[in-house]
Amino acid sequence: MNFQSRSTSLSTVPSVVRRPSVSSRLSSAVSIAERGEAQDGGGIAGQDQIEEEIAKIKRYEDFTTIDWVQDAAREQLRRKARRKRQAGLYGSGQVDWRQKIREAYDAAQGWIVVTIIGVAIGLNAAFLSIITEWLADIKLGYCTTKFYLNEDFCCWGADSGACKGWHQWTGFEPMNYIIYIIFATLFALTAATLVKAYAPYAAGSGISEIKCIIAGFVMKGFLGFWTLVIKSLALPLAIASGLSVGKEGPSVHYAVCTGNVISRLFAKYRQNASKTREVLSACAAAGVAVAFGSPIGGVLFSLEEMSSTFPLKTLWRSYFCALVATAVLAAMNPFRTGQLVMFQVKYDRSWHFFEVLFYIIIGVFGGLYGAFVMKWNLRAQAFRKKYLTNYAVLEATLLAVATAIVCYPNAFLRIEMTESMKVLFRECEGAEDYHDLCDPGHRFGNVVSLILATIIRIFFVIISYGCKVPAGIFVPSMAVGASFGRTVGIIVQAIHEANPKSVFFSSCAPDVPCITPGTYAFLGAAAALSGIMHITVSVVVIMFELTGALTYILPTMIVVGVTKAVSELFGKGGIADRMIWFSGFPYLDHKEEHNFGVPVSHAMISDVVSIPSTGMTLKAVERLLTKDNYQGFPIVEDETSKILIGYIGRTELRYAVDRAKRQHTLSPLAKCTFATTSSTTTADPTTPLIHPSTPAASSDPLDYASSQATTISFAPYIDTTPVTVHPRLPLETVMELFRKIGPRVILIEHRGRLTGLVTVKDCLKYQFKAEAAEHHLSHPREGDLRRMEEEGQERVWGIIRAAAGWVSDAVGRVSRGRIRLSDSWEGQRGGYGIEGDGHPSAAATTVMAGAADGGGGGGVLGRGMIMDGTEEEGGEEDEGLELENR
Amino acid sequence: MNFQSRSTSLSTVPSVVRRPSVSSRLSSAVSIAERGEAQDGGGIAGQDQIEEEIAKIKRYEDFTTIDWVQDAAREQLRRKARRKRQAGLYGSGQVDWRQKIREAYDAAQGWIVVTIIGVAIGLNAAFLSIITEWLADIKLGYCTTKFYLNEDFCCWGADSGACKGWHQWTGFEPMNYIIYIIFATLFALTAATLVKAYAPYAAGSGISEIKCIIAGFVMKGFLGFWTLVIKSLALPLAIASGLSVGKEGPSVHYAVCTGNVISRLFAKYRQNASKTREVLSACAAAGVAVAFGSPIGGVLFSLEEMSSTFPLKTLWRSYFCALVATAVLAAMNPFRTGQLVMFQVKYDRSWHFFEVLFYIIIGVFGGLYGAFVMKWNLRAQAFRKKYLTNYAVLEATLLAVATAIVCYPNAFLRIEMTESMKVLFRECEGAEDYHDLCDPGHRFGNVVSLILATIIRIFFVIISYGCKVPAGIFVPSMAVGASFGRTVGIIVQAIHEANPKSVFFSSCAPDVPCITPGTYAFLGAAAALSGIMHITVSVVVIMFELTGALTYILPTMIVVGVTKAVSELFGKGGIADRMIWFSGFPYLDHKEEHNFGVPVSHAMISDVVSIPSTGMTLKAVERLLTKDNYQGFPIVEDETSKILIGYIGRTELRYAVDRAKRQHTLSPLAKCTFATTSSTTTADPTTPLIHPSTPAASSDPLDYASSQATTISFAPYIDTTPVTVHPRLPLETVMELFRKIGPRVILIEHRGRLTGLVTVKDCLKYQFKAEAAEHHLSHPREGDLRRMEEEGQERVWGIIRAAAGWVSDAVGRVSRGRIRLSDSWEGQRGGYGIEGDGHPSAAATTVMAGAADGGGGGGVLGRGMIMDGTEEEGGEEDEGLELENR
Repeated sequence: MNFQSRSTSLSTVPSVVRRPSVSSRLSSAVSIAERGEAQDGGGIAGQDQIEEEIAKIKRYEDFTTIDWVQDAAREQLRRKARRKRQAGLYGSGQVDWRQKIREAYDAAQGWIVVTIIGVAIGLNAAFLSIITEWLADIKLGYCTTKFYLNEDFCCWGADSGACKGWHQWTGFEPMNYIIYIIFATLFALTAATLVKAYAPYAAGSGISEIKCIIAGFVMKGFLGFWTLVIKSLALPLAIASGLSVGKEGPSVHYAVCTGNVISRLFAKYRQNASKTREVLSACAAAGVAVAFGSPIGGVLFSLEEMSSTFPLKTLWRSYFCALVATAVLAAMNPFRTGQLVMFQVKYDRSWHFFEVLFYIIIGVFGGLYGAFVMKWNLRAQAFRKKYLTNYAVLEATLLAVATAIVCYPNAFLRIEMTESMKVLFRECEGAEDYHDLCDPGHRFGNVVSLILATIIRIFFVIISYGCKVPAGIFVPSMAVGASFGRTVGIIVQAIHEANPKSVFFSSCAPDVPCITPGTYAFLGAAAALSGIMHITVSVVVIMFELTGALTYILPTMIVVGVTKAVSELFGKGGIADRMIWFSGFPYLDHKEEHNFGVPVSHAMISDVVSIPSTGMTLKAVERLLTKDNYQGFPIVEDETSKILIGYIGRTELRYAVDRAKRQHTLSPLAKCTFATTSSTTTADPTTPLIHPSTPAASSDPLDYASSQATTISFAPYIDTTPVTVHPRLPLETVMELFRKIGPRVILIEHRGRLTGLVTVKDCLKYQFKAEAAEHHLSHPREGDLRRMEEEGQERVWGIIRAAAGWVSDAVGRVSRGRIRLSDSWEGQRGGYGIEGDGHPSAAATTVMAGAADGGGGGGVLGRGMIMDGTEEEGGEEDEGLELENR
Repeated sequence: MNFQSRSTSLSTVPSVVRRPSVSSRLSSAVSIAERGEAQDGGGIAGQDQIEEEIAKIKRYEDFTTIDWVQDAAREQLRRKARRKRQAGLYGSGQVDWRQKIREAYDAAQGWIVVTIIGVAIGLNAAFLSIITEWLADIKLGYCTTKFYLNEDFCCWGADSGACKGWHQWTGFEPMNYIIYIIFATLFALTAATLVKAYAPYAAGSGISEIKCIIAGFVMKGFLGFWTLVIKSLALPLAIASGLSVGKEGPSVHYAVCTGNVISRLFAKYRQNASKTREVLSACAAAGVAVAFGSPIGGVLFSLEEMSSTFPLKTLWRSYFCALVATAVLAAMNPFRTGQLVMFQVKYDRSWHFFEVLFYIIIGVFGGLYGAFVMKWNLRAQAFRKKYLTNYAVLEATLLAVATAIVCYPNAFLRIEMTESMKVLFRECEGAEDYHDLCDPGHRFGNVVSLILATIIRIFFVIISYGCKVPAGIFVPSMAVGASFGRTVGIIVQAIHEANPKSVFFSSCAPDVPCITPGTYAFLGAAAALSGIMHITVSVVVIMFELTGALTYILPTMIVVGVTKAVSELFGKGGIADRMIWFSGFPYLDHKEEHNFGVPVSHAMISDVVSIPSTGMTLKAVERLLTKDNYQGFPIVEDETSKILIGYIGRTELRYAVDRAKRQHTLSPLAKCTFATTSSTTTADPTTPLIHPSTPAASSDPLDYASSQATTISFAPYIDTTPVTVHPRLPLETVMELFRKIGPRVILIEHRGRLTGLVTVKDCLKYQFKAEAAEHHLSHPREGDLRRMEEEGQERVWGIIRAAAGWVSDAVGRVSRGRIRLSDSWEGQRGGYGIEGDGHPSAAATTVMAGAADGGGGGGVLGRGMIMDGTEEEGGEEDEGLELENR
């Protein structure tokens, strides 16, 4: 009875709506014929076919964002259809076992995909580790027994120092050094050439781009097969070349590529971009997990840094993917140590409360390091973008040479970064020592060495991160932090030993070591990592999984907390976020809390190109598709009343036109109508009607028509329930809708009338405009600073060009012209920015009009312009934008 | 120029809207007078005052949900006002330092609050630990030197066995046992009496309720000061009484209480319920952090289990709060061990791949344990709800007596649960041993003991969790898992030692121990914890932070993964979620993926009581407020057109009426108009207009009126931008809107017309209905089963009543009638369920009508009925619902 009373109450609604609306007389008789046909079953089959075809063609265009709402609806539709099939089978009593298996397969598909991906990532990681080790060792010598073995495996089983298989290249030390440099140069050259020739997207870290992709951005090829292959090949070369680059960013990238490539093999993921995003989140977790041997750290990194939406299901997927990948890596056991823990340490001594003071110093260093490196690295990137795009290979090679030459004299820079961290984390209790680090007599020398190492490494991190080889920033940052931390640790130890009776050190037990410098190095690494990435919980967990130093959980948390607080003073967002802003991706950040205090109508586009439901000629529709670049068109009852009826995506419209033209001979004057059932007929609005299907009108819209159709109904392609909001809704709420619900476009409806349209990009434009205006108020002399900066860049460029020319010639001579370093690769990434999302051309026009106008608003939206694909203003993102030229 | 072109394009919109709408002629001349007054500044001040007053009275009513959208808008408004003040100050060039300090304080307030809360939680946790230890020891003996010291502190510094200060109560062992039982009984009695007399909400775990509260549910008093005090006092008593209850659920509860009580002292949180939720999430993290000494585990628990929305800001708050609380606890050092790690273990041996087989067995056990305990515990809860509500104190006391009597003979149940885990986790390498656990000769005896311990503990967990004392389920579950795991470990060890040469064990090194049973216990604890709570990542992290066994990260992940997979077979959601369904809280679960395939119109209420903007008499408005229980009313242009204009909350309406009556003598026939500015005047809809303010009409609506006002405008109280959706929007999308955006009510608008209204509860009702229908299809014989179950319950009740009566008499005799155990406390929690959220009375009426109707739909929505506060159907939630009586 309850049901009945409910349904009775519901049935009162239609009576209101059923009343023919004002617009219904405008609809042609065709729609009635259409409705008549909808009764038979054949129409439903036709509708199914259309849906399937749309699903297949529904590949989002490049540099657009996906529509989470539509994708979710499509997935629901798919499941509903499946369940209906299932229910039908059970109902009829005949359960086919093949059908059952298919059902089970469908249900478990997600887990199967994740397992395969996890295994692939684990195998790839093991392979990469082995190659990297071999390449790093081949710079120093070779294995006489089997050339493909690295030093450890060549000498397996032999006592240290008594290895006979491994030979240095020559007996003459300076010659070895030169061979070392040559190898490093060759590795960097090969890596950069591979990247340039086959997969430009394989350059750099990839974390920023993946963040945007997971948030819904479409970048074709960024996660493609070739990117995967080249990234996997070039990464070991880049690391072995000795550049100050790490492997974790690229690890995430190749892991996500693996996920993308494998999930494409399954229809469920091929057809649903938002489902694929879930898998990509899981792959990001697996990437970090295999890079550090830190499965939980990977999951948390994916959660804290990579993913914009992270439902619990994705958490479990990530957990599982990271587990499988790490287990495979552990089973492969590439280092033959049987350990996942990279730098196992056993700190026997606990910490003392007075040490918190020094922990705070380390935390502050982490924050400052992050802010400093981000600021200067972005300037370096701007410089690179402006001057070095043609010299990518040369640049990487030069960097490798410079790194090899400069770093060799310093004991802590000479060895590999992970090796150096291992040394710096040590407790000094056992027999192992490196460079007399534990010897109180060599304290001064070590402190000087470590300070130099810190400074030089910071410099190389700034100029190396972003060069056109696979390059991460985690490990270099940790190495910087470790050398600084060890410095602090040694100084504190010295102070304690000089004043053992001081009140400050009263909690130290007498006559036993009190300060462990290794713990300071450990904390320094955590601080620098947190400072550069602006992540907290994941850093703490990664550090534990790397070292196992659980007693130091509170110190680690304190250090990371301080770093976080200091970092926040220098602006929000880690280097990945800064790179997103720098590149102008349409990414709505979660970290920022906006407070514009304006309604959405301030940011919306109000002169929207809409389609009247009464229809337009085929010619006009085709002109719409060719002329404008809009991603879709709202459908209104008629141009004057502007009563909103629905929305049709560009892809769907093009498909519909193509299909109609394929099936029938159509005159260009054939009328295309966009009237949905509810607007033209008396259908019950409570009918289950999930877009993009309209079951009530589910017949093929052209079946009724003769081969010379004069009216085509595009009703089945219309989304009748686009996301709409009131024009006065606060902009912040609309941005939250974009972030959390994820539509591609939000229509602004006031009393049923369409008044505007807003996309993520419109929100971001408004945000930049507001920020620029605010920034201008507080920094009126920005322009002078920028001019100075540009002059500085110009001068640096002059110096670099001179040096670069010389090296290019030298390499050309050495390779007899076979290797050319100075090819232009401009244009390959020229259009790297937003194109065609929402209503970009209209927006671009506005911006350009503003820029052309000079005086009044010139230079406004510099960042906005980057978003539209122009790169002239590349140097100014760091310092914000100005309102007017002065 | 860009700005200008944008603003020009915007100014074209108003021209459309400015066209007087049909309804404008209906508005009285008063509104024009009103507009005239809006020009002066006094009106704005009046509006500010109104806003402040509303903010103060805007305490959500009990058992309703908060409106995240409105709260966010209010917070934005507050910040904007602050910024405007700030800008004004900077603009005038005079920056008051006091003002500056105030700004800084406002910005840092969140962190200050979290710090204070963290310190308070840490202190409370330390205090609780000390009290618990003392109470647990006082059962066995007393300290002769200082009675308030526990055994450890009394014997501090003395060699083990040579403590002179600590005496057992008597020299006669059975007498000691009786004293032990008496103390346990007294503790349980005191705890239950305290809870019953002062804070009924302090009973149980509290995790389910807090989950709902963090999701936006309002339960007054649940986080109040008295709950905090009583929970803090009763928790040590309950644990010391030996009941199979843990301290982590209650820890979360008292931590969240602390957060609520302290944040109330700050205006920012007192006035904003959604801001407070952020702090509560952080407190939940701190609660787990101090319970386990596991700060990161706490953060992840809060993230994975407690919080529905978890923005990064909350993550950092949680991190910070957990850090502060744990640091304070560590500084207080209540155990004088200087360690946060509770059960430090050092597993020297790594694991072997063949052990994965046994890990899977442990994982399966975890899943089965969780499913079994959940099923039977919910039955026990239903039984308790049905028969034992009047005997809460008696029940707890009886349980304590039974636990003490039954557990004493078993070596692993006799000792405290954490102590028993410590014993079971041990590696057997050192000298320490308990009950010859490491002795191969005693294997059989130990296995039998452990199996018994597992079974008995499971039984006691089932009947104890949910009794009316503070009671958690983490530690008891872990203890069960540990005893099972150790059993498996011992068996595997025995198999290995019997077949050392087997191929299966080939990876074991010869002649050294290969299997470490302690690691199995450790993994068993993780599995059981994951099985009961359905959490994954947090369990892994908590287990590490508890033990430091980092080498076992992969085994732990495998075990937890298997548990998770097995658990999923028995339905979604851990015990906290099951308790939420059981109690009927309006909580939209994130874990479940719904697939109704219906539009929202199927779930909406369509006969909505709406207010015409033209107004109604004061009498009618007051009748609306007294007669109906609705939380708010949509405002429509007029009753026939039903063009939606806005929404007014019940609280605001009542405030507006009260205010008008306070200020003026009003006749009951005075007309109340609800016309907003945009509908009656020519205001630009793009004006920033964030509710609840309407700046354009911001004068006091009654200022213009004489003391005999005949027309009152309620415009300033209207929310002009309620969340609206299309009636055909899929229900799943609407549920996602509720979950992620968090409005209290969503209005259904079709072409500008109001067609319905939907609340979280309506969604849940539809969900239960759909689930019941589906369940009925697959389990048609449900009714018989339930009848049998009820008969079983009745029989158990008969037995219990006989026993209970006897004990009650005995206690009454012993205490000479001063302690009465069988008081009725019915009614105190009678209304425990949803009341007044959305349109409950209408819904209740529907349900009741359905129930009264018998035959057709009787018994439907049993769970829905619990939601409406009736408890008669308490026994059926576990097995789902049926569509019809048979």
